Amino acid sequence: KRSYNVTLLPGDGIGPEVVAVAKDVLSLAGALEGKASNQSLSLSLSLGPMRVEFRFQEKLMGGAAVDAYGVPLPEETLAAAQASDAVLLGAIGGYKWDNNEKHLKPETGLLQIRAGLGVFANLRPAAVLPQLVDASTLKKEVAEGVDIMVVRELTGGIYFGQPRGFGKNDKGEDTGFNTEVYSASEVDRITRVAFEVARKRRGKLCSVDKANVLEASMLWRKQVTSLASEFPDIELSHMYVDNAAMQLIRNPKQFDTIVTNNIFGDILSDEASMLTGSIGMLPSASVGESGPGLFEPIHGSAPDIAGQDKANPLATILSAAMLLRYGLGEENAAKRVEAAVTETLNNGFRTGDIYSPGTTLVGCKRMGEEVLKTV
Amino acid sequence: KRSYNVTLLPGDGIGPEVVAVAKDVLSLAGALEGKASNQSLSLSLSLGPMRVEFRFQEKLMGGAAVDAYGVPLPEETLAAAQASDAVLLGAIGGYKWDNNEKHLKPETGLLQIRAGLGVFANLRPAAVLPQLVDASTLKKEVAEGVDIMVVRELTGGIYFGQPRGFGKNDKGEDTGFNTEVYSASEVDRITRVAFEVARKRRGKLCSVDKANVLEASMLWRKQVTSLASEFPDIELSHMYVDNAAMQLIRNPKQFDTIVTNNIFGDILSDEASMLTGSIGMLPSASVGESGPGLFEPIHGSAPDIAGQDKANPLATILSAAMLLRYGLGEENAAKRVEAAVTETLNNGFRTGDIYSPGTTLVGCKRMGEEVLKTV
Ligand SMILES: CC(C)[C@H](C(=O)O)[C@@H](O)C(=O)O
Ligand SMILES: CC(C)[C@H](C(=O)O)[C@@H](O)C(=O)O
Repeated sequence: KRSYNVTLLPGDGIGPEVVAVAKDVLSLAGALEGKASNQSLSLSLSLGPMRVEFRFQEKLMGGAAVDAYGVPLPEETLAAAQASDAVLLGAIGGYKWDNNEKHLKPETGLLQIRAGLGVFANLRPAAVLPQLVDASTLKKEVAEGVDIMVVRELTGGIYFGQPRGFGKNDKGEDTGFNTEVYSASEVDRITRVAFEVARKRRGKLCSVDKANVLEASMLWRKQVTSLASEFPDIELSHMYVDNAAMQLIRNPKQFDTIVTNNIFGDILSDEASMLTGSIGMLPSASVGESGPGLFEPIHGSAPDIAGQDKANPLATILSAAMLLRYGLGEENAAKRVEAAVTETLNNGFRTGDIYSPGTTLVGCKRMGEEVLKTV
Repeated sequence: KRSYNVTLLPGDGIGPEVVAVAKDVLSLAGALEGKASNQSLSLSLSLGPMRVEFRFQEKLMGGAAVDAYGVPLPEETLAAAQASDAVLLGAIGGYKWDNNEKHLKPETGLLQIRAGLGVFANLRPAAVLPQLVDASTLKKEVAEGVDIMVVRELTGGIYFGQPRGFGKNDKGEDTGFNTEVYSASEVDRITRVAFEVARKRRGKLCSVDKANVLEASMLWRKQVTSLASEFPDIELSHMYVDNAAMQLIRNPKQFDTIVTNNIFGDILSDEASMLTGSIGMLPSASVGESGPGLFEPIHGSAPDIAGQDKANPLATILSAAMLLRYGLGEENAAKRVEAAVTETLNNGFRTGDIYSPGTTLVGCKRMGEEVLKTV
């Protein structure tokens, strides 16, 4: 029996609803690992038909933690996350805390846990599913077959650079400032992850920067370029961020894997995800050198529909699949969960965000039940 | 007779071709101001049927200037531009200079002339023309009617912030760094321009920032918010940049005027422009408190088609229209040029980038001639 400690961070808004569903899916997928049925012979031999067990513990973070403890990431939550094998996060934030000072913003808790776990590599897939191609605002022939992985640097750059803060300029005026900074090793480690990811995909890597203007990007490009010789099988290209923002719309199929810094990755991964038209479907994985990874849907906390059983739990379920694959190395269980999501879509079940005439509209819980049936 | 000095900066690649065409259009539009025909009576009375004359001088900048003078913006070019009434720029850059050191990059010349002219407000319209709605990769019902103006801060932020450069961190590793910084007055002046622009449009302004993470954005949002009371007729909203990158694709019609910082404006204005599917059509205007404005198409220098008479000159012609309107206050002539472009499209003429079956494919020069016929 393999057994894992998983920290659940439901967070705010729809977070608790979608995490509850994903937890059940994880448990069932783990239990089914004990059964040889559904497994190919080679997989049963390599992984063994051994039951996988999860020990879950739930902790507060985000706005919920601000309300209960006065901080968005209580020490206890970080310590529990660090001591576990993997962390599953729902979503954080909401209008209620939007005007809080920085140290009391839910978002600050998110940045703290990323830094605290050292998860510098954020993998954000954006694939247009055949069942949902109509959800895209792009023309069908442009959208269909899009399958992009954005590898975003997550613990450096302007999000964390020092100095930062408020000051006065020489005219005595208020100023606000941040520092975009990368070191060679920070670029190298994310670039290596991206090359490896590209190798498991279609072998193409596009590094996005603004090296025609920014020194931080010039260093980025230099390091990426110098690592290319270690990955001669990967086709490397470079693109300026403004052009990338255009090309994603003009011809998204030209991209396979994209690697970029924290802020450009924030913008471009959201842009890429919206190409699919179904961000309620998209998971993400954040991993470091060692230690537990952080897995979360890319959608927000959607406070307007929280508690109404309307949320789409599939992004969180797919994040749980990434947790199995990238966090625990349980490839077989990951595939099982992904296959269940595909089958549930094929069975015609849709939450409101991806509903189209002719399909069956269901709520968050029911969607979870349908996935459980097919796991 | 009204007479203006206009500095032409053809630049690199297709720049010279498109600027040559736009120059002819300006001349003719100016000459026609002398005729009362085509003018409404009220306009003839207010502006007078007075001939407008242009004195053009052409100067080198970008890669062409690097080759001829060893710098991307010769002093002589900047001085001429500063002494003129308006500046029309073609495009700069090309593979040839891509690996130059920073001070020898064509892009550096562009940043220098923006700073040298103090043109802090960059207006970038992105409108889907009814004649070209099929050029968009967005579904017709999403694309049609899109009409966005991005007001981008152009002489501050991370493009110009100090300190910047290369260094070593405490582990002795190479680093590259830049500073994103805004002062209150820098935000105020661009915000005022944006409010005024929104007032002349549909009265909606969306300020885009990353105030949930960056101090520079927190200052930005605070200043924008505090100016709102001066413009009670304008509906102001705020959006995070990652969400804006998504919303532009999900539902671009929700936007009227967008105001944002230099780097976010670089990315989002290019994204917005690609929604139209026809960036060969899009002009831009950069203006300051006083002094000459800088007008340029948003497309690049397209070195691969340079000198082949294939470029679309309409973006530069429309930039000349913006030059007439925002640079010289010649609203009547601006409208005349814009109407000529519309008529030429209605007549079915298309360069390769916007060609579709059933229209007439023409080159750069011929397109210019067709526009001249209808001016
Ligand atoms: C909530 C915010 C701090 C966060 C980020 O900018 O990283 C979010 O947009 C994301 O992409 O996960
Ligand atoms: C060429 C480059 C320096 C420039 C910029 O980033 O401002 C361009 O992308 C633009 O938007 O005008």
